[in-house]
Amino acid sequence: MDDLTALEKAYEEIMVQRRCGLRNVLARIENIKDVIEHEKREAGIKDSNPFDTIKSRIKSFESAYDKVERKGYEKSAKGLAEVHDIAGIRIITPYLSDVYDIREILYEQVEKTKPKNTMRIVDENDYIKNPKKNGYRSLHLDVEVKIAATKSAKAEWIPVEVQIRTKAMDLWASIEHKLKYKNPNPSHDTESKLADVAEYLCGFDDMIMLLRDENDEEALGIEDIPGLSLHGDNFKKH
Amino acid sequence: MDDLTALEKAYEEIMVQRRCGLRNVLARIENIKDVIEHEKREAGIKDSNPFDTIKSRIKSFESAYDKVERKGYEKSAKGLAEVHDIAGIRIITPYLSDVYDIREILYEQVEKTKPKNTMRIVDENDYIKNPKKNGYRSLHLDVEVKIAATKSAKAEWIPVEVQIRTKAMDLWASIEHKLKYKNPNPSHDTESKLADVAEYLCGFDDMIMLLRDENDEEALGIEDIPGLSLHGDNFKKH
Amino acid sequence: MDDLTALEKAYEEIMVQRRCGLRNVLARIENIKDVIEHEKREAGIKDSNPFDTIKSRIKSFESAYDKVERKGYEKSAKGLAEVHDIAGIRIITPYLSDVYDIREILYEQVEKTKPKNTMRIVDENDYIKNPKKNGYRSLHLDVEVKIAATKSAKAEWIPVEVQIRTKAMDLWASIEHKLKYKNPNPSHDTESKLADVAEYLCGFDDMIMLLRDENDEEALGIEDIPGLSLHGDNFKKH
Amino acid sequence: MDDLTALEKAYEEIMVQRRCGLRNVLARIENIKDVIEHEKREAGIKDSNPFDTIKSRIKSFESAYDKVERKGYEKSAKGLAEVHDIAGIRIITPYLSDVYDIREILYEQVEKTKPKNTMRIVDENDYIKNPKKNGYRSLHLDVEVKIAATKSAKAEWIPVEVQIRTKAMDLWASIEHKLKYKNPNPSHDTESKLADVAEYLCGFDDMIMLLRDENDEEALGIEDIPGLSLHGDNFKKH
Repeated sequence: MDDLTALEKAYEEIMVQRRCGLRNVLARIENIKDVIEHEKREAGIKDSNPFDTIKSRIKSFESAYDKVERKGYEKSAKGLAEVHDIAGIRIITPYLSDVYDIREILYEQVEKTKPKNTMRIVDENDYIKNPKKNGYRSLHLDVEVKIAATKSAKAEWIPVEVQIRTKAMDLWASIEHKLKYKNPNPSHDTESKLADVAEYLCGFDDMIMLLRDENDEEALGIEDIPGLSLHGDNFKKH
Repeated sequence: MDDLTALEKAYEEIMVQRRCGLRNVLARIENIKDVIEHEKREAGIKDSNPFDTIKSRIKSFESAYDKVERKGYEKSAKGLAEVHDIAGIRIITPYLSDVYDIREILYEQVEKTKPKNTMRIVDENDYIKNPKKNGYRSLHLDVEVKIAATKSAKAEWIPVEVQIRTKAMDLWASIEHKLKYKNPNPSHDTESKLADVAEYLCGFDDMIMLLRDENDEEALGIEDIPGLSLHGDNFKKH
Repeated sequence: MDDLTALEKAYEEIMVQRRCGLRNVLARIENIKDVIEHEKREAGIKDSNPFDTIKSRIKSFESAYDKVERKGYEKSAKGLAEVHDIAGIRIITPYLSDVYDIREILYEQVEKTKPKNTMRIVDENDYIKNPKKNGYRSLHLDVEVKIAATKSAKAEWIPVEVQIRTKAMDLWASIEHKLKYKNPNPSHDTESKLADVAEYLCGFDDMIMLLRDENDEEALGIEDIPGLSLHGDNFKKH
Repeated sequence: MDDLTALEKAYEEIMVQRRCGLRNVLARIENIKDVIEHEKREAGIKDSNPFDTIKSRIKSFESAYDKVERKGYEKSAKGLAEVHDIAGIRIITPYLSDVYDIREILYEQVEKTKPKNTMRIVDENDYIKNPKKNGYRSLHLDVEVKIAATKSAKAEWIPVEVQIRTKAMDLWASIEHKLKYKNPNPSHDTESKLADVAEYLCGFDDMIMLLRDENDEEALGIEDIPGLSLHGDNFKKH
């Protein structure tokens, strides 16, 4: 118990460091989003932004400690620091193709700033091409940024996990989370049905990609119709 | 043009009034959400809240004027005031059954406070049972609240539209919005495919209701497993 | 210790109730703010809104329990429920006169809706006319709203404290808070110097009222100068 | 008029660029704030953070164009780009000494990362030591960050103005803003009275620095008193 308290204290230092990394990557991603929006406006392209929502989190100590146990890491500050997704950014996209477009842009950003780059991508897990057994789908990029997080310390590479997924994948994940919250150890039957649901939503992602392309074709050469405004519904979250 | 400017000015008064109504209904709905969460915690029920997200909007003048034209209302302050969904609240739920649970609670709230009630439900459109041609699904309640919106005026009934829909229905609506933004007059083929997509997502809503019920069965009698924490992912929107 | 846990649990019910009351009063105050802004715009008055900032809080259990101890209330759910400022709203104003203008509007709102009013003002403490010994200044209104906070319960009066103060009074309070945080039991000398600082800021509040009135005189009959825009600085908080 | 429209379009590109710079500097400043808070907690220091509030803004076209006219810059994209405070960050501090502490930290951050630094301070205006005629006080740092703001462009230095001021200086500025809004061309008498008010608030800033130091002395060696909690008031802005 006392060890746990010491560990929790050590975790605070790690959290501060990761939060600094998170802010840095978040600013980069929001900058990319802004620039894309501007370039589309500039070019008169009415396409929607590939970024629907950007979210972020810092793992709580409990959650990080769970991971240390599950992964069999050392129960120490060093073990906690091995958890690479303490800082997480989630990018949610309308279409499946957006996931890979954003991946591309992030790799480009890294290439462009070489050799003095302060961001690098050290690993990638494509859980869309290779979904987890329960049906989980997302593209994970293990990013690192070089910043001086503490006053005394010199700059070091700080890991931030970037998850990219479609709205449909995110919908599945929210349902999975609810079910698991109530029933942490689901039967094989439930797990397999959950995977079926994920598969079903892949069907949706495919359908809307086709529909989008057909719609784009139809829209070609169509002038804006004056008098018809599309102001959106502008609903704001509370 | 000058008439339009005069109308826009008149609309400001209407907006202020509707925004007052909106805040009142929003506070009621957030109170209901809070109370439900508390009661479930109290009873040790791990069920998720039927409210996933609560959003709101006030229609812009352009958007309200469009509606006046489409509906053939008088092009006057009176006509604008006929638009009943200038103030809109959207409640998004995890499961389809939640939509009707929330509907029930809102009717109960009205009943309970009779005859001195300051909220009433004057109309209802169930676009889930009877979807629109393009596939749009949502339950609409036309609510009115009695408040004194302006300093001088005596209290009057102010209309606020409450839309209740599942996350899947909301996902469909976001895609439909994107397609229509690019191609305001879609072909019959596109429209019908869009309706198919909506239907497909109904399949999803049915699947997860079944899955939830099976999962609940399994969870019965299961003790909380110590050491396994389900802290959620805690991602916050930016 | 066990009693404390039971009390903390009981406090949750009280918190939910007070939070419901808080939301209701907050919606009313924000509605008032909106209406005043609209009416000034309408009348072409460039005066600033009497509302600078609106804040709110729910007291934590620790803070409410402290108060129970200090006030000598019963250490029970009943005692906790006696704390009338668990729900608190703070209105911060530019000028001293705004404090009393807002007070007036709140009393009017209560009068206007009689006898069916669902808001009443049950007590008032004018710590501006009679500052606390340490120099604390604010106008406190003990408001109550009648709402059905829980599903089962019938509507009851829920207390919400409304504090109204100028920005200068709020500046003093923030400094006092910092000093007391570091030194919970200040010497008489420190206390008296703190009261002097509060007095000094009263001087400021008087100066700017005079300056405002002179400035208003000068502004009379002055046309808006085209080409000179006053877009403000638009700084947004992070 | 057409020229103005073309200029406004050109300004959009500048805005995107500056907003990217703003996000970058903002992330750095929030990181500094976090690290300081952590280090103080770590060291058991109960001192308050030198950062009270951090705000930011991007100047509107109207506001930037006004400045171009006032400064006599070229009425072109080039002239607009000369405005160095299109992106602005404002740091508000409790005490006067905090202003200079934060200044110090920003210079240190620049030094530490040399010669590969991507942030530099190119100019400084100390309007605290040398207030403007109307009484305006703030410390201004002209910062530049090197980032690739657009997809195609290579990284370039983007200017961001950082203003640091006490809460009292900020209070003065808010009053000045209100008076000028109503009366854009105040008389010499009004201007000089406004400067007097600023001077008066300097007296406040001096008083509270002394009071803080005396309070710190008193607090030395004082143990935390159990049972007395200082949970703050936790008021949140709406």
